Amino acid sequence: MQYRRLGSSGLQLSALSFGAWVTFGNKVGRGAAREMIAAAWDHGVNFFDNAEAYANGEAERVMGDAIADLRLPRDGFCVSSKVFFGAVREPRPTQKGLSRKHVVDACHDALRRLRVDYLDLYFCHRPDPDTPIEETVRAMDGLVQQGKVLYWGTSEWSAAQIREAHKIARLRNLQPPTMEQPQYNLLHRERVELEYAPLYAEFGMGTTVWSPLASGLLTGKYNNGVRSEGRLAQDGYGWLQRMVIGESKERRIERARKFTALARELGLAPAPLAIAWCLRNPHVSTVMLGASRAEQLAENLEALAVLERLDDAAWKRLEAATAA
Amino acid sequence: MQYRRLGSSGLQLSALSFGAWVTFGNKVGRGAAREMIAAAWDHGVNFFDNAEAYANGEAERVMGDAIADLRLPRDGFCVSSKVFFGAVREPRPTQKGLSRKHVVDACHDALRRLRVDYLDLYFCHRPDPDTPIEETVRAMDGLVQQGKVLYWGTSEWSAAQIREAHKIARLRNLQPPTMEQPQYNLLHRERVELEYAPLYAEFGMGTTVWSPLASGLLTGKYNNGVRSEGRLAQDGYGWLQRMVIGESKERRIERARKFTALARELGLAPAPLAIAWCLRNPHVSTVMLGASRAEQLAENLEALAVLERLDDAAWKRLEAATAA
Amino acid sequence: MQYRRLGSSGLQLSALSFGAWVTFGNKVGRGAAREMIAAAWDHGVNFFDNAEAYANGEAERVMGDAIADLRLPRDGFCVSSKVFFGAVREPRPTQKGLSRKHVVDACHDALRRLRVDYLDLYFCHRPDPDTPIEETVRAMDGLVQQGKVLYWGTSEWSAAQIREAHKIARLRNLQPPTMEQPQYNLLHRERVELEYAPLYAEFGMGTTVWSPLASGLLTGKYNNGVRSEGRLAQDGYGWLQRMVIGESKERRIERARKFTALARELGLAPAPLAIAWCLRNPHVSTVMLGASRAEQLAENLEALAVLERLDDAAWKRLEAATAA
Amino acid sequence: MQYRRLGSSGLQLSALSFGAWVTFGNKVGRGAAREMIAAAWDHGVNFFDNAEAYANGEAERVMGDAIADLRLPRDGFCVSSKVFFGAVREPRPTQKGLSRKHVVDACHDALRRLRVDYLDLYFCHRPDPDTPIEETVRAMDGLVQQGKVLYWGTSEWSAAQIREAHKIARLRNLQPPTMEQPQYNLLHRERVELEYAPLYAEFGMGTTVWSPLASGLLTGKYNNGVRSEGRLAQDGYGWLQRMVIGESKERRIERARKFTALARELGLAPAPLAIAWCLRNPHVSTVMLGASRAEQLAENLEALAVLERLDDAAWKRLEAATAA
Repeated sequence: MQYRRLGSSGLQLSALSFGAWVTFGNKVGRGAAREMIAAAWDHGVNFFDNAEAYANGEAERVMGDAIADLRLPRDGFCVSSKVFFGAVREPRPTQKGLSRKHVVDACHDALRRLRVDYLDLYFCHRPDPDTPIEETVRAMDGLVQQGKVLYWGTSEWSAAQIREAHKIARLRNLQPPTMEQPQYNLLHRERVELEYAPLYAEFGMGTTVWSPLASGLLTGKYNNGVRSEGRLAQDGYGWLQRMVIGESKERRIERARKFTALARELGLAPAPLAIAWCLRNPHVSTVMLGASRAEQLAENLEALAVLERLDDAAWKRLEAATAA
Repeated sequence: MQYRRLGSSGLQLSALSFGAWVTFGNKVGRGAAREMIAAAWDHGVNFFDNAEAYANGEAERVMGDAIADLRLPRDGFCVSSKVFFGAVREPRPTQKGLSRKHVVDACHDALRRLRVDYLDLYFCHRPDPDTPIEETVRAMDGLVQQGKVLYWGTSEWSAAQIREAHKIARLRNLQPPTMEQPQYNLLHRERVELEYAPLYAEFGMGTTVWSPLASGLLTGKYNNGVRSEGRLAQDGYGWLQRMVIGESKERRIERARKFTALARELGLAPAPLAIAWCLRNPHVSTVMLGASRAEQLAENLEALAVLERLDDAAWKRLEAATAA
Repeated sequence: MQYRRLGSSGLQLSALSFGAWVTFGNKVGRGAAREMIAAAWDHGVNFFDNAEAYANGEAERVMGDAIADLRLPRDGFCVSSKVFFGAVREPRPTQKGLSRKHVVDACHDALRRLRVDYLDLYFCHRPDPDTPIEETVRAMDGLVQQGKVLYWGTSEWSAAQIREAHKIARLRNLQPPTMEQPQYNLLHRERVELEYAPLYAEFGMGTTVWSPLASGLLTGKYNNGVRSEGRLAQDGYGWLQRMVIGESKERRIERARKFTALARELGLAPAPLAIAWCLRNPHVSTVMLGASRAEQLAENLEALAVLERLDDAAWKRLEAATAA
Repeated sequence: MQYRRLGSSGLQLSALSFGAWVTFGNKVGRGAAREMIAAAWDHGVNFFDNAEAYANGEAERVMGDAIADLRLPRDGFCVSSKVFFGAVREPRPTQKGLSRKHVVDACHDALRRLRVDYLDLYFCHRPDPDTPIEETVRAMDGLVQQGKVLYWGTSEWSAAQIREAHKIARLRNLQPPTMEQPQYNLLHRERVELEYAPLYAEFGMGTTVWSPLASGLLTGKYNNGVRSEGRLAQDGYGWLQRMVIGESKERRIERARKFTALARELGLAPAPLAIAWCLRNPHVSTVMLGASRAEQLAENLEALAVLERLDDAAWKRLEAATAA
């Protein structure tokens, strides 16, 4: 495994990490979750990502039990949670948003479900226009002061919102955010590469990127369009389909087709190639893998080998083939 | 239920909330308290207001037991307490005022009585000219840092005192007050509408208003003067009678009579109409309801329906009829 | 009982308070201690003073047990401890001075002996030239942040040292000292009246004064010189004899004689008169009484009655008679 | 025993202290460790030094058990730990470096192994170029705020790195480092005497120096070269051999020979003479002794007697004889 610093922080995360999103507590039951966490750990994965919104907390319960069963050493692994998953409905008004109350309650709940004394990483899962950024920064800083959180960050915040959080933290002498969790893949690269560009040097921001396979588009399974199978066709993921595929649906599927064709030419499976592509960006601290089966995870973990094998010429061909 | 942010904070309170004042631990026993809290919760009320001074702590005990019995989810409801109820006598010198000692002791006592780990809102129940505001702000900030309080605020402080608290908090990098709990109703509106006017934009102050019925005056029950029934005639409420009815006692009862007459004309019960009037003010975060019987509470909760039903013309008539 | 604010703070202390110094754990056993604390409490005394140095911690144990036995309400009384009693030897190097280690260890020990969760007042018992004032201020502030101490102060520090502590607290945004515990009586008044004069307005400093009877000189018991009885003749109190009687031993005993003669003329016991004299100074927050017998304590508590009874003319005669 | 302040702090350490390095958990078993700690304590030693890296935590377990068995009073002794021993390999990426995670995890682990509630001293065992100094300073300050650490410091940091830590602490109002733990002996004196020279007055830095015997060179046991015995010849200590003996291996052994010859002339054992030499430097707060046998420790403790016995002339001869 390769390890990278989380931005300019001193925390060393495995370049490939394992997330519970859309799988744990849904398709992936307790046995499979435990098996995959064990396999990831054996491969050197040291960061396991989660959120209160994943399967309504069940993903955290499954992960917490698995980690406890496997007796992973607390100082060897990192675990995260996230608070407030945007527009998606939570049951009651105080159980959403980035108010001090929800930030604190959600932290305590995650600690309980994950069965740990502190969260290594704690994310604001989405920005909340209805809470002043200062309130959220103060609440996060308080949790850090109390030792319940080590590093806090954001997910899918705009560069302007991240900059505002840093400004407030500096002014009020509070702990600033350390990392962002953005979507990043061959078909969705503008935010990480352009919008956030000034933030890396200025604030030492790290990124824990999600959806390296563009929700499956880059594996080729939607090459013939989004039909009845796969996540993008599931109920409740309309928002994701719009976000991943965007306005120019046909255009993106076309690019995915070119990508999988090139992968075939190079003699590689598309998934590890797409993941390896993410790792080429030095501002990516870790790439989040999701998997519903152990074989899928094993295939994804091949990305590091792919990264070592390919030369610059191959990467240039890839860029050319998939240009927007 | 409608939900509103507590000022510019991220906390979402139900526009109608339920307070223990003068009822819990007095006329309202444990059974009735539990029944009314359950009913309020079922109607979407998520804020339950209390104070150390209400029935000498008994109101908090009754509420804490009811909330525990009903197993309300801690992240779904908000509960408050208040410290130092002004001139009213507490037994010993250290048990009153806004000294660090009393602020801290009263918080710990309220946590115990309410059976919670933290107070969502904690109020300075009255200003204390004998304690420097800095001492109180520092004590409140300390409780927030320790996780025992989420938001702190004031009750019946002057605009100048609130501004001073903000100034100190900014200067010393402490958590500023988030909200005020003022009296507000058709007959007592100057403070909320005029004195506090600059504070809403400047500090994002929220308000949790009390006595929307002017201690019953607006229900019409004192239309023929304050006689032997009702709170204003009770022993120990002389201060309230003076505060509510003020110098021009006859004038106010006259206005209350006009109000109830208009309510009759509109085919509405006076109480929900008076409450709805409070909700028309966008600077009101929540209106505190008090009730000694379930039917009374149910009637008061009709205020939101009244608010939807009436048009601007009706409100204008109301303003004209009750002008001071 | 009369109550006074501790300087400009919001804490209300009884004008007469009760200290364990030189009595508890020595002449005064557990039964008598308990009896006197109960009597003081019944008279409205709400502050009980102690220190790690008093009988090597035994004074705190005796007081803690008595307060627990009597079930005094925690929010009704104040208790203090003090750390580092100057040149007097403690057993080991880390167990003296005002280092962060000793300040923290001594606080924890006092909490255990006094059987409380927090100290209301915590004093630096003497200045420590071998510890930077910043280290002590930071350590005190840390204990306040953790809720283990409410107010911290100094005892027998110079005005310059107190000012330095305030300067550092302001600069570093730490809690400044609230009070000083100086010796103060008719024969030893310069520090309180002259040296500290600028501090009262500038920092709102309160004082909890000790030795209102000048270690007994003002009761008349040394009128014929220091012989084999009384504290000043005891082994180990040479330092106190020098401090109380000073260079001009004969002169002071002479003044004490005049004082007792005047008391006799006024028909008053000397002790309560001497204590009442201290209370005339508005910068005195509370006068610490010591007693080895209940009758002595009862007599001392008469000071408030004396204060009310005497007119300005009497006080002027007293000043004239005892002028240095 | 002589006691010295830890730099300008108020903490009084014994001039000779006892460290677990390379002995505890290796050559020195539990019985011998306990015996030597008891002997050191009886001689007035009050500081026991340790680190997570010593025998992989076993040194801390042995020391913690011994201290508990001996019932040393917590306010009478000081104990330390250190986090991150530089290039030496720890098992996993998050278990090394000076990230907030490792600083916090290692502190909690040390508290558990040493069986104490707080560490008196906590060191960054080596600088970590891969963690921003601000992250480490904030993490250390957090532990101090939580009462888990009293004083934090560095070991083998450059003067520039120490200055940077102070600058950040001042700017952000965090607790600055109090002490450094450098190597210091007759053959390795430049850093302490030259590089750190400006830091003593500027920041009041204290030093807890290690290797007063230059890993045994100054006892004379390597006078005929590093052969098969002694620590410098052990596996895994290549780095130490290079650090101690340096480029001019022959030259240093030559100086060690002259030193031992002079010791013989003065009628002194070389070890206590070498230790006494360290104590002559007023910027040395304490000299760390290591010993694998009780007799060795006893001999080393003679250093204070040597210091008293020798006159300036003897020290001048020593300087001349061992000049580089």
